[in-house]
Amino acid sequence: MTTTVAAYAAPSAKAPLERTTIERREVGEFDVLIDIKFSGICHSDIHQAREGWGEAIFPMVPGHEIAGVVEAVGSGVTKFKVGDRVGVGCMVDSCRECENCEAGLEQYCLKGNVGTYNALDKNGEPTYGGYSQKIVVDQAFTVGIPEGISLDEAAPLLCAGITTYSPLKHWNAGPGKKVAVVGLGGLGHMAVKLAHALGAEVTVLSQSLRKREDGLKLGADHYYATSDQETFKVLAGTFDLIVSTVSAPLNLDAYLSLLKTDGAFVNVGAPEEPVALNLFSVIAGRKTLAGSGIGGIQETQEMLDFCAEHGLGAEIELIRADQINEAYERVLASDVRYRFVIDTATI
Amino acid sequence: MTTTVAAYAAPSAKAPLERTTIERREVGEFDVLIDIKFSGICHSDIHQAREGWGEAIFPMVPGHEIAGVVEAVGSGVTKFKVGDRVGVGCMVDSCRECENCEAGLEQYCLKGNVGTYNALDKNGEPTYGGYSQKIVVDQAFTVGIPEGISLDEAAPLLCAGITTYSPLKHWNAGPGKKVAVVGLGGLGHMAVKLAHALGAEVTVLSQSLRKREDGLKLGADHYYATSDQETFKVLAGTFDLIVSTVSAPLNLDAYLSLLKTDGAFVNVGAPEEPVALNLFSVIAGRKTLAGSGIGGIQETQEMLDFCAEHGLGAEIELIRADQINEAYERVLASDVRYRFVIDTATI
Repeated sequence: MTTTVAAYAAPSAKAPLERTTIERREVGEFDVLIDIKFSGICHSDIHQAREGWGEAIFPMVPGHEIAGVVEAVGSGVTKFKVGDRVGVGCMVDSCRECENCEAGLEQYCLKGNVGTYNALDKNGEPTYGGYSQKIVVDQAFTVGIPEGISLDEAAPLLCAGITTYSPLKHWNAGPGKKVAVVGLGGLGHMAVKLAHALGAEVTVLSQSLRKREDGLKLGADHYYATSDQETFKVLAGTFDLIVSTVSAPLNLDAYLSLLKTDGAFVNVGAPEEPVALNLFSVIAGRKTLAGSGIGGIQETQEMLDFCAEHGLGAEIELIRADQINEAYERVLASDVRYRFVIDTATI
Repeated sequence: MTTTVAAYAAPSAKAPLERTTIERREVGEFDVLIDIKFSGICHSDIHQAREGWGEAIFPMVPGHEIAGVVEAVGSGVTKFKVGDRVGVGCMVDSCRECENCEAGLEQYCLKGNVGTYNALDKNGEPTYGGYSQKIVVDQAFTVGIPEGISLDEAAPLLCAGITTYSPLKHWNAGPGKKVAVVGLGGLGHMAVKLAHALGAEVTVLSQSLRKREDGLKLGADHYYATSDQETFKVLAGTFDLIVSTVSAPLNLDAYLSLLKTDGAFVNVGAPEEPVALNLFSVIAGRKTLAGSGIGGIQETQEMLDFCAEHGLGAEIELIRADQINEAYERVLASDVRYRFVIDTATI
């Protein structure tokens, strides 16, 4: 038996989001029915709802930063029980049998993972995201939210948290390492918190010094404005790792010059258009230009446990569902510190 | 007391190379006087002699693939004795005290290494390369050429060999790894030999199938033409490592699509102009776009020992000194299989 739940959806690419109802599938053997409490607003929700990333599926219920409580479980569910605090991130399924899925890299599933929204599931049904009251998700793509993180501050960890945690871990951010974070937005502010908690020396590279005080409070040791060309002289050859969270096109050669020998510049944000690169920028100093997308399910659980252990959550601005459209405009204007989270009780 | 030796030099950027004489410095305490036997012609000799890479120092004696025999040693020399077979590659000095030099990465010396030619040494004197009868080099930048490699086939190892060996080792080419080599020229043919000897499964990606037979003989398991768009479909997601030896601008996004998750595309050749890159090409599959320049002195020795152990040398076409200018034209026309080597007895 399906469940009818209230949701906020974009009826088409040009229209504002509005209240509607959607059907959630019957709770299957390995499914968890989650009473969604909070859902973060990610910049990519806007890209997709407005078809900035290509043709999309409408009506669209965005939201892949989901925190809630288990309301029911299928007969085969072993990971969770009713009442457990759980989260769902950017994907709700994958092929589960390719070499990447077997290695815990479901985000790089060779057959493509199933997005939490704006995707088709194995049965060809469209998926609907977190701007809704309930969701049914396979236990394999559900993670536990430990006590010690409030659900509202936990929600953005499911995308902004794991997207920055994964490359920080993969490229060994930790004691003795100098890490720079480009951009201090939703992803950037989590990157600063996480890199600091991992023990790295953290520098924020932001367009201006406007958020400097915030950056230092979040855990940054240094803060530089990239609009000041002096920054690129002073910091030449400094960093082991730079994580770029921005989607504006950057002068890659300039940023690569800030790396030490064998350093890595890792993009978790990216502009839609191609960027120019002088390959000598990577040859001199054996440097790496790389990218990273979200993280695997096991790693997402590891990230949440790490955040609980270190008392980390996102900095959020809690909003009502009827403020979603306004929030979108403020996200586009970079006017949020640092993540809007929808109180789904208001849907 | 300096030594006057015959050499071939470019008197200026526009002029052909011609016979001349140069002075070699007095053999210092830690210096080795080398009787040069063979000197390879590297594409970068032409770039520099024609000021393709910017303003150069003239007259210029190119040549950084040098193989010869020790003729005299300074009082402090411990590594070599008269009669030893030795080689000199792309650099003849570095600061020797920065963290990179201390780590054996003299090629990435933070103060800049001293090029074998077209550079100024510590005393501000121009350096002259291998298109000459003798050279004086500090023992620290001289390597031993093991018995088992003939000196003429060893010469190109000092640049083409180490430039490909270093990234193959750094990015773990070996058994179970699928490695592609882009371009089958001076560097590419060594990359194929070395990757095969390291135990990797080797694929050549060349513009056409013209050199296919050669490629397979050199050790490639597979050979594809990149002018055929089908190649990019058939090989999507195949390689752990791609080493690009070409200086033509490539469609980076297309080549990155040939990598497995976590794979690396490493440039040892590079066009002078910037290239376009869609950053989603590295985000999807956590891929690396990197570069690598020559190799350190210790690693160069390791490479020569590896080549001797596996019976590897370059495929060469031996020429007289008076054929250098003609050889340059043939290099530019990709008409060499696979490296011109000057018999310096003919200078």
